[in-house]
Amino acid sequence: MLPFARVTVIGLGLIGSSIARAIRQHMPTVRVTGHDADPQVREIARAIDLADDITDTPGAAVTDADFVILCVPVGAMGAAAADIAADLPPEAIVSDVGSCKASVAAALAAALPGVAIVPAHPVAGTENSGPEAGFPSLFHKRWCIITPAADADATAVARVEAFWQALGAEVERMDATHHDLVLAVTSHLPHLIAYTIVGTASDLETVTRGEVIKYSAGGFRDFTRIAASDPTMWRDVFLSNKEAVLEMLQRFSEDLTALQRAIRWGDGDTLFDLFARTRAIRRSIIEEGQDDARPDFGRSHE
Amino acid sequence: MLPFARVTVIGLGLIGSSIARAIRQHMPTVRVTGHDADPQVREIARAIDLADDITDTPGAAVTDADFVILCVPVGAMGAAAADIAADLPPEAIVSDVGSCKASVAAALAAALPGVAIVPAHPVAGTENSGPEAGFPSLFHKRWCIITPAADADATAVARVEAFWQALGAEVERMDATHHDLVLAVTSHLPHLIAYTIVGTASDLETVTRGEVIKYSAGGFRDFTRIAASDPTMWRDVFLSNKEAVLEMLQRFSEDLTALQRAIRWGDGDTLFDLFARTRAIRRSIIEEGQDDARPDFGRSHE
Repeated sequence: MLPFARVTVIGLGLIGSSIARAIRQHMPTVRVTGHDADPQVREIARAIDLADDITDTPGAAVTDADFVILCVPVGAMGAAAADIAADLPPEAIVSDVGSCKASVAAALAAALPGVAIVPAHPVAGTENSGPEAGFPSLFHKRWCIITPAADADATAVARVEAFWQALGAEVERMDATHHDLVLAVTSHLPHLIAYTIVGTASDLETVTRGEVIKYSAGGFRDFTRIAASDPTMWRDVFLSNKEAVLEMLQRFSEDLTALQRAIRWGDGDTLFDLFARTRAIRRSIIEEGQDDARPDFGRSHE
Repeated sequence: MLPFARVTVIGLGLIGSSIARAIRQHMPTVRVTGHDADPQVREIARAIDLADDITDTPGAAVTDADFVILCVPVGAMGAAAADIAADLPPEAIVSDVGSCKASVAAALAAALPGVAIVPAHPVAGTENSGPEAGFPSLFHKRWCIITPAADADATAVARVEAFWQALGAEVERMDATHHDLVLAVTSHLPHLIAYTIVGTASDLETVTRGEVIKYSAGGFRDFTRIAASDPTMWRDVFLSNKEAVLEMLQRFSEDLTALQRAIRWGDGDTLFDLFARTRAIRRSIIEEGQDDARPDFGRSHE
């Protein structure tokens, strides 16, 4: 028994297009409708046959849906919800894939009064963007966190949970505020730091940009990968999850200052103790299947 | 015509053992001798047949060598050089693979007066350590920077250059001090930041370590990979390249503070401008062949 029969995906970037592909792979009888605000994206989506129907308006995409997933930047969620409000069937369930949950939940609730809303966040992605970047296995064995409000309809929550499990994801329920704190440290802060260091490296007078690129295999290139992620999406994440990000950033800055001091004063023990401690976390991540153990930072040994 | 006939590798970790393997693959007629200060490492090296001979003392390893490469942490270079001084044939050339070059050049010159020294730094590595972590293609298409002193013997420099080219590396000559500045930004600072953020994440009261591990696919796991690198090696790097690392760290902190301010004041344009700019660097790194373009941060789409 499939959780939904007619799914609409609004926003056909990396995540939205991966959902469309994953539905077709795992639930081939489900009818998939898509819409994107960008006409060029709609054209590509039609050309690559991403869904059964790509509509020109958001309203037309949802008229017949029993499940609508908003896959737009978190800052655009409220507007995307307002755009479908008039055409949404009363029994349809609405979800999203935003990386911040408290602000999105509030925006969706305001735009869609009386609608069953079950916010979700699949913790998966790549540094690429757009409808052609998606692939159906993106959510395999990745976590999808759903953050229903305390008074959410239990059946709606169960159906959204079953939907993500059908795409291969493992589902966890979490309080929206706690989600935002967890993701601030596991995702938002790492992205902010990666963007910063890539910016710092490109602004040096003493080291040329050519040198930075040439010798990036020493560690820098891994940061550039993260810092190649979608700018609009990430701008919105930092503005929407401001408090949690600032809190984590403050802690990071304090810890970095302590290491800076250890370097300045030649305190090798402090450096060694931290460097040895961080290895254990890596082992746990591999044991939990959230990364693989292949060396060379994931590169093939060509 | 091979640049050397009898090569000795002192220190059989990731880099040393990869050099031994690469010599065998690319220059099978060269006799390779190895030594490591750790008896357990020597035992493993013998068991996996890493070299033609694994000696119990550093002196015995070099008596017959025409090229000696020191592959020990940069803080141990001076001692490793002193240990071979008495047994080194007068015509032998000595090199190293340290990630900092000015301090190592000084240490080697002090320990080995009159010896032809050509410091080198292959910009390649993985997050794994030890004699079993090495592999022969580690240096393929990677840069090896050699930093000979201004008065270095031209023939010795040319032979070391030919040696690295024979292992598949591209060689660049650079001033030692400039090298240290370039690597401070492309390698040392990224490692310091990765170590810091992994430490910050493991010390939170509001987010459990289990949650950090579970949801690490959002960006954090890439930092843990870098932060799993060898603690002794990296402690020594930061102590040896102190000035350049502190200079880069200061710039990074200023840039991070500017972003922090942009987040606090809701300045989305500043965030977007940086995030869009950093994508260009990523493209250049892929164009220059220093990383591949496969998405999902290098993971297979299992």
